[in-house]
Amino acid sequence: MKIAVIGPGAMGLLYGAKLSQCAEVFLVGNNPEHIREIQENGVTIKREGMENKYQVKAVLNGEIRDPADLLLLFTKAYLTEEVLSLNRALIEPETMLLTLQNGVGHEEILRRFADEDHVLIGTTAQGSYRENAHVIVNSGLGDTVIGKGGGKGTNPAAEIKREGAGNEGTGRLQQIADCFVQAGFPCAISDNIRQTVWNKLMINASSSVLSGVLQKPQGYVAENAWAWEICQDLIREICETANGEGCAFDEKEQIARIRVHLQNAPGGYTSIYADLKNGRKTEVDVISGAVVRAAGKQGRPVPAQTMMVRLVHAMEQESGF
Amino acid sequence: MKIAVIGPGAMGLLYGAKLSQCAEVFLVGNNPEHIREIQENGVTIKREGMENKYQVKAVLNGEIRDPADLLLLFTKAYLTEEVLSLNRALIEPETMLLTLQNGVGHEEILRRFADEDHVLIGTTAQGSYRENAHVIVNSGLGDTVIGKGGGKGTNPAAEIKREGAGNEGTGRLQQIADCFVQAGFPCAISDNIRQTVWNKLMINASSSVLSGVLQKPQGYVAENAWAWEICQDLIREICETANGEGCAFDEKEQIARIRVHLQNAPGGYTSIYADLKNGRKTEVDVISGAVVRAAGKQGRPVPAQTMMVRLVHAMEQESGF
Repeated sequence: MKIAVIGPGAMGLLYGAKLSQCAEVFLVGNNPEHIREIQENGVTIKREGMENKYQVKAVLNGEIRDPADLLLLFTKAYLTEEVLSLNRALIEPETMLLTLQNGVGHEEILRRFADEDHVLIGTTAQGSYRENAHVIVNSGLGDTVIGKGGGKGTNPAAEIKREGAGNEGTGRLQQIADCFVQAGFPCAISDNIRQTVWNKLMINASSSVLSGVLQKPQGYVAENAWAWEICQDLIREICETANGEGCAFDEKEQIARIRVHLQNAPGGYTSIYADLKNGRKTEVDVISGAVVRAAGKQGRPVPAQTMMVRLVHAMEQESGF
Repeated sequence: MKIAVIGPGAMGLLYGAKLSQCAEVFLVGNNPEHIREIQENGVTIKREGMENKYQVKAVLNGEIRDPADLLLLFTKAYLTEEVLSLNRALIEPETMLLTLQNGVGHEEILRRFADEDHVLIGTTAQGSYRENAHVIVNSGLGDTVIGKGGGKGTNPAAEIKREGAGNEGTGRLQQIADCFVQAGFPCAISDNIRQTVWNKLMINASSSVLSGVLQKPQGYVAENAWAWEICQDLIREICETANGEGCAFDEKEQIARIRVHLQNAPGGYTSIYADLKNGRKTEVDVISGAVVRAAGKQGRPVPAQTMMVRLVHAMEQESGF
């Protein structure tokens, strides 16, 4: 299998390097200096005192002209359309496009480059951060869950089916999941992947965004009565919107789940918190912004989500975004 | 006229000291040390290089047992009910209660201590800040506007009538306005004081609160497209709520007016900004909170105002409030 991993950030390097053990992998990026460093040094993955080095091909956007079997997207969401356009030569009718980017709604952009059956969406619970251009720390091992995301979800009650335990995923999807497992990524196929993706968004678009706006650790959102009121409104709006997209979430269950999550790791800081603190552009548009867009199409007012998007952008702007 | 000025902060000291020139004034406070300093040193008002010293009586809450003609309230809003209870002996049926506190809705608490005809509300555009317990700087001279506030406004189109220019204010209200003018406070009587009070709230409950939440100077609210979207929503909600209270505001006019105000003083910082920055409890409950309460009684959803109240309280809580 020939795989183009688009976006050689911390997650792209992790997947690209490990997948190169069982597939032909190209890391595709936009920074010539960064690409050169990967070409010269390979990718080093650190984990629990161990270091493994992988020789992986690295190219610039548009450099490869032959089609790939799989495009795996890890680029920043606001760059997705641009990088797919630059790498259009990689896509032939049988090419699968898989996004493991944060947030929801990426499939809308992917569908401009492939039909419904060739668009996959998913989530990853792997953790990774960069030490430099070619060295990363694999800070967490968790499941990768993938599924067909090109059309609307139709089976909200469907269970996630673990790879190797008699799942019904077939053809290319199964082949991709097998490749992930072989490369060391526990991987499941879900026939209700929308539920999985919205489930991950549930925390990101509620407590994570709010802890960024308040510039507080995430536990504060559950501890402070006023913050928790806001958080509950955000969760309710996500549940209503996700259910409008064909998911099946129970508000009370989600509120209880997120409260436990926050209480279990009260000192944790979220990526939106860190991006705002460090003057970086955030991914709020694919997190809270994705909820606002989906709700907008449903004609559903989501005032708390809308406020979060505006506040985060207003806070970003001090850094010139 | 016997006047009790309740709350010897920067504004209370200013009004108390100057009114003592033409009335019998008691400053009434809750801090024994502060009261003692005023008793020993009098009140010094600095303005443009000049200093004037006033000998003013100062007492603790509940210390005076004889009724006053006027109670002038400058205390923090969340203390109003408590200090009126402590000073109930000052209030007889003919005693007038006048609030020049920030925000709207104070008349609801005053009405628990006096009937409709003895409750006055108003605004002041005087500026004052404290150098120490008994020395203040009179940093701005502006109109004081007062009127009967115990009942609902009935004449939204009424003009403010300037004292001395043939106004129709009569009896006690006129006597109070005359006393203010004599003491050096330009004072007008309005027979639509609700409009005046909500007009002042318009900026406080929109751009001022938002600049506090964003921790930015007020000009940023107009400069930043996302912040300005939020600000316009806040203004719209205030206009709708105020109009529901008998006022007559045009949304577009107010949005345009506030934009000009922000552009004229872009570097200005608001009191909510400063309170949040310095870990103090804010007055958000009588500003945005007053809009939320009034809207609630009207059955009107004001999601942006509600969010501001919650965010400000969530930001205050880091200081233990």
